[in-house]
Amino acid sequence: MRPVAILGIGQTQVDEHWDKSLKELAGEAAFAALNEAGIKRADALFVGNMLAPIVDGQNQLGAHIADWIGMWGSEAVKIEAACGSGAAAFRAGLMAVAAGEAESALVLGVEKMTDKAGHDVTSALATAADADYEVEQGVSFVGLNALVMRRYMHEYGWKHADFAPFSINAHANAIHNPFARLHQKITAEQFEKSSMVATPINLLDASPIGDGAAAALLVPAEKLTGRKIIVAGSASATDTIAVHARREPLFLSAAYASAKQAYAQAGVAPDEIDLFELHDAFSIMSALSLEACGFAERGQAPRLGLDGEITPHGRLPVCTRGGLKARGHPVGATGMYQIVEVVQQLRGECGVTQVAEARVGMAQNIGGSGATILTHILKSEP
Amino acid sequence: MRPVAILGIGQTQVDEHWDKSLKELAGEAAFAALNEAGIKRADALFVGNMLAPIVDGQNQLGAHIADWIGMWGSEAVKIEAACGSGAAAFRAGLMAVAAGEAESALVLGVEKMTDKAGHDVTSALATAADADYEVEQGVSFVGLNALVMRRYMHEYGWKHADFAPFSINAHANAIHNPFARLHQKITAEQFEKSSMVATPINLLDASPIGDGAAAALLVPAEKLTGRKIIVAGSASATDTIAVHARREPLFLSAAYASAKQAYAQAGVAPDEIDLFELHDAFSIMSALSLEACGFAERGQAPRLGLDGEITPHGRLPVCTRGGLKARGHPVGATGMYQIVEVVQQLRGECGVTQVAEARVGMAQNIGGSGATILTHILKSEP
Repeated sequence: MRPVAILGIGQTQVDEHWDKSLKELAGEAAFAALNEAGIKRADALFVGNMLAPIVDGQNQLGAHIADWIGMWGSEAVKIEAACGSGAAAFRAGLMAVAAGEAESALVLGVEKMTDKAGHDVTSALATAADADYEVEQGVSFVGLNALVMRRYMHEYGWKHADFAPFSINAHANAIHNPFARLHQKITAEQFEKSSMVATPINLLDASPIGDGAAAALLVPAEKLTGRKIIVAGSASATDTIAVHARREPLFLSAAYASAKQAYAQAGVAPDEIDLFELHDAFSIMSALSLEACGFAERGQAPRLGLDGEITPHGRLPVCTRGGLKARGHPVGATGMYQIVEVVQQLRGECGVTQVAEARVGMAQNIGGSGATILTHILKSEP
Repeated sequence: MRPVAILGIGQTQVDEHWDKSLKELAGEAAFAALNEAGIKRADALFVGNMLAPIVDGQNQLGAHIADWIGMWGSEAVKIEAACGSGAAAFRAGLMAVAAGEAESALVLGVEKMTDKAGHDVTSALATAADADYEVEQGVSFVGLNALVMRRYMHEYGWKHADFAPFSINAHANAIHNPFARLHQKITAEQFEKSSMVATPINLLDASPIGDGAAAALLVPAEKLTGRKIIVAGSASATDTIAVHARREPLFLSAAYASAKQAYAQAGVAPDEIDLFELHDAFSIMSALSLEACGFAERGQAPRLGLDGEITPHGRLPVCTRGGLKARGHPVGATGMYQIVEVVQQLRGECGVTQVAEARVGMAQNIGGSGATILTHILKSEP
């Protein structure tokens, strides 16, 4: 397939945007990306979204947003893979450009979640889990992750406090990201004393939902001269939706498979990754993602945090713009925020949390408790 | 992009399948397609679905179905474009194979609608319309189409009875399709006396919903020897979702644009199309689709029906397996039923409704009242 590059990016702050509709948020991010690229419209639009049919009563977001942003008439479609929708849309746009079906593709992740009461959103989010075998039995999405975290702590002997560095790092980095939802530092003591949500997951293990949109414009790499950011690796893999059906509930097999394929495509090994925007919906997911991608032995990922290796100046910086934990998790948009953040790092635009000489960045977006996982590797090339 | 061929197809009957879950229906169609192709699993799965998040409480159908049909681990994703979801998934699978990202792609359209009360499904279907400007004002989906039909009759001077041939043809053809939902002939008198739904649309202008799944397996054409069915044209275009926002509410601009592009790719003119599986969700949509695709002058499509040109032995056979009207309209699956039906015609498997020497077939799938329209042209090649 022909190489594809990212020519423009855009994003809104993740927040409770009660004054803006879904399409207004989408427009903000889309216009920013189009403006950076210096074009008015792209050939095609790929929208990642999970909840609009349920929460906003709106399907067919492709056509809906294409018209709103001045791309009337163009090809447009929506892609859904629960919280992995953003990266899934990115991969769909990538394939359209790679196949020569579009000379430019705008990919947009968007979610509007905070207009509804909390219990409505909790129900809507549960559609990411198995309706028959999990949700019908009364297991909520955070409950599922709590079961996984408890088993992990039991199996490998970690205490809850050992997960603190993941959240502390995310919060510390978000302070310097104007697009993040949360801008406060947290301490290890606060992490331990935070309100319990579903034992052992407390408020500071969990990412906050939010409204937001993030976008990127894709074009054939051959059209660009000078330094450019190319999509060097892109892969998607799946696992069972129901966690109990997995042979190894503590191993993200779809993260392993998609990362392995992305490494091979990009021609890099894990130790050549300069930064990793991982899917820390809950602190336990940070650990599982790091292990499946080859950055830590099984059961040993909390060590990376405790040893200070995941900060922007550590050996493997993660969540450099705040991650899901502090930038916020507008579910169907999250995967596109991660892509945008990797681009910002490769461009050297991240100020205090800039990773020195970042040339190769990885983003991993997870749908459900690991059922759909997409891994992308971006490179800055001369 | 490299040429892509269809190696296997499968479908379930469209019906009220109260004894089968969504994934069981999906499995029936998927296994049939995989069996025809002589393989156990494909590299990737693309699922077209509109209503599962709302009606079944299940998102992430890609991973959900991949696991169920024995494609555990493979890339899988869901595509949504309202009632155009099926063809949109087909196009996504096509791009994956064309881009070289998959050597085989299983595309599946699936919908399970009849387990819920009618008013729940009516609300769910309304998510295809504009939530702010149409649905919020109380306009249902059939109501929107009724407004369009009334305007068309006023503008061009047709009577309601003039639309009868579209429905009569669809019902006559469905009798010979074991996968169709309705198997009864209808007469012009019945068409005129049927119960009113939303004036001027009565029960026999409207397609019935249903549960069903249809699938096709895509591979690079170069891998096949002998006669094969290739995807000669594929295009997608959009229009505003809200009908009132269109410059010409009686012209399907997205049908025109996508058909034009598909004709150019396939190197054919409208008069070279041997059969046309069009999106007759309501009889008025048959007329608008025929006009936008160049088969009739604006306002003149009912003439084709009245002159007997749309039957299997006419000049332009449409809905040869029953169309949405009589095969049934399991919304997110419909686009894949159309593809499967064109393949059956090109293979000469349609018995009484077989179009003689069919070599070039077209399918057009519509999301909303014309907001997302995909046109595919398939060819049987030596």
